[in-house]
Amino acid sequence: MTQLFGTIAIVGIGHIGSSISRRVKRDGLAGRVVALEANAEHRQQALSLGVVDAATGDAAEAVRDADLVIVCTPIGTYPEIGTAIAPHLKSGAIVSDVGSVKMAAVRDLGPHIPAHAHFVPGHPVAGTEHSGPAAGLVDLFDGRWFVLTPTPGTDAAAVEKVAALWRAMGSNIETMDPAHHDQVLAIVSHLPHLIAYTIVGTATDLEKTLQQEVIKFSASGFRDFTRIAASDPTMWRDIFLNNREAVLEVLQRFTEDLTAMQRAIRWGEGDKLFELFSRTRAIRRSIIDAKQA
Amino acid sequence: MTQLFGTIAIVGIGHIGSSISRRVKRDGLAGRVVALEANAEHRQQALSLGVVDAATGDAAEAVRDADLVIVCTPIGTYPEIGTAIAPHLKSGAIVSDVGSVKMAAVRDLGPHIPAHAHFVPGHPVAGTEHSGPAAGLVDLFDGRWFVLTPTPGTDAAAVEKVAALWRAMGSNIETMDPAHHDQVLAIVSHLPHLIAYTIVGTATDLEKTLQQEVIKFSASGFRDFTRIAASDPTMWRDIFLNNREAVLEVLQRFTEDLTAMQRAIRWGEGDKLFELFSRTRAIRRSIIDAKQA
Repeated sequence: MTQLFGTIAIVGIGHIGSSISRRVKRDGLAGRVVALEANAEHRQQALSLGVVDAATGDAAEAVRDADLVIVCTPIGTYPEIGTAIAPHLKSGAIVSDVGSVKMAAVRDLGPHIPAHAHFVPGHPVAGTEHSGPAAGLVDLFDGRWFVLTPTPGTDAAAVEKVAALWRAMGSNIETMDPAHHDQVLAIVSHLPHLIAYTIVGTATDLEKTLQQEVIKFSASGFRDFTRIAASDPTMWRDIFLNNREAVLEVLQRFTEDLTAMQRAIRWGEGDKLFELFSRTRAIRRSIIDAKQA
Repeated sequence: MTQLFGTIAIVGIGHIGSSISRRVKRDGLAGRVVALEANAEHRQQALSLGVVDAATGDAAEAVRDADLVIVCTPIGTYPEIGTAIAPHLKSGAIVSDVGSVKMAAVRDLGPHIPAHAHFVPGHPVAGTEHSGPAAGLVDLFDGRWFVLTPTPGTDAAAVEKVAALWRAMGSNIETMDPAHHDQVLAIVSHLPHLIAYTIVGTATDLEKTLQQEVIKFSASGFRDFTRIAASDPTMWRDIFLNNREAVLEVLQRFTEDLTAMQRAIRWGEGDKLFELFSRTRAIRRSIIDAKQA
């Protein structure tokens, strides 16, 4: 593969950050990968796993030579990260991110980026429920979408350089308006996570013996929710706090639909249940056809 | 493996029925497997796949020589199936089932079984979202639970014969009161399915372009729900109609918890979100430890 960048700095070497660095290093997409990571244990892990060339807790040291900085920390850290890295960015540096709420990236990271650098927010629609540098996967982005949400006036060459990196990591590139991205993600990702967290929470509140049986017999349905609900708490707290309007809007629709289902069950309206259950099968087929299953 | 039964009749040769017959035939657990199946195409499929020795739409023909009859049709068919098979059961025959609501089995199938036969209701906590005889899997029950819900006065030898068959198919056996079973399943299976169906339904009601994007970007969270929501509509309609009280009770708890989450998001209560999201991780670990993940 062609080297696309001299030095890449990964801010936050967790599941996503270390998946990027693994792929970049395997395919030689950059000359050097440096991690900026506050957690000393994670720095040590990343180094001993060989997924980065250097790891530091010092922002200046991490980003000073970076041609590309990718912020991979929870969205709530963006103002602080922006403040820390901004003074040390070199001329022409590109700052990108992988956060799941793009309006928040534009609002909290964008204003910190100096005029001599470029800000190109983005979001890889990929990931597992695992966290930390050891959970990185070299093929995590293969065949998945990477959504670019550049703001008006962003340097086109910088956008293309970020796109080229993700294309080299196996992703398909899509460009979207940040607000529209957040609306789509509220439906496909944020609401499903909220629901999964809630139902698993409902189960943890059951009396002890019933709870043990729920764990024992989790095979049919519930276990899929527990997988989703094992995702990183900080990351998800920040997503909900920062995509509030879009999540509340789709949650309202969902609640109305659930109330209709509740009523159909209460009154024994089998036809209504059957009609919905048949309709949802078609969506699954579309997803299989779209090769996202 | 030892042959446990002379002839087994499988009523309804779909995903579960054909998984049983595949295993029984592979391991020689019965001398002969006969399918009672109303759908001529499914009869033909089951025969050409070689998963049964014979297939018929005639109840008398199917069950007259059967030492064990396993009802694998949707719960709504139980009164009709009971009426059809009862007059033809031989002396000492055992009738069992695999339905997901045991109170309904006891209520709708039990009373049809004549005094010279035995009724042993049960439920394998296993399955996929696929349907039909071609979707059967020979190892579907391996390492999964089979819950026996015998009623007071059931012949202990008959119960043990059913347990021995499921043990031979790889399952772990558990015995439960039918009402308690239905309460546990309402939480681990019925509510998760209802929620998955509902959220996928919410997505199908979106305007067309948004819906296409939901399909395109389904990778993070939503796609797991679509898999669950692709399950057989008739089977699931019958489950909700027949486990109404237990489902409504747990749905009420879930709705209260979801409303609390909604409020926490609206008011920006990050601590509450973080606390729940951390708690749910522990449940996932318990499920992994219980080897049901």
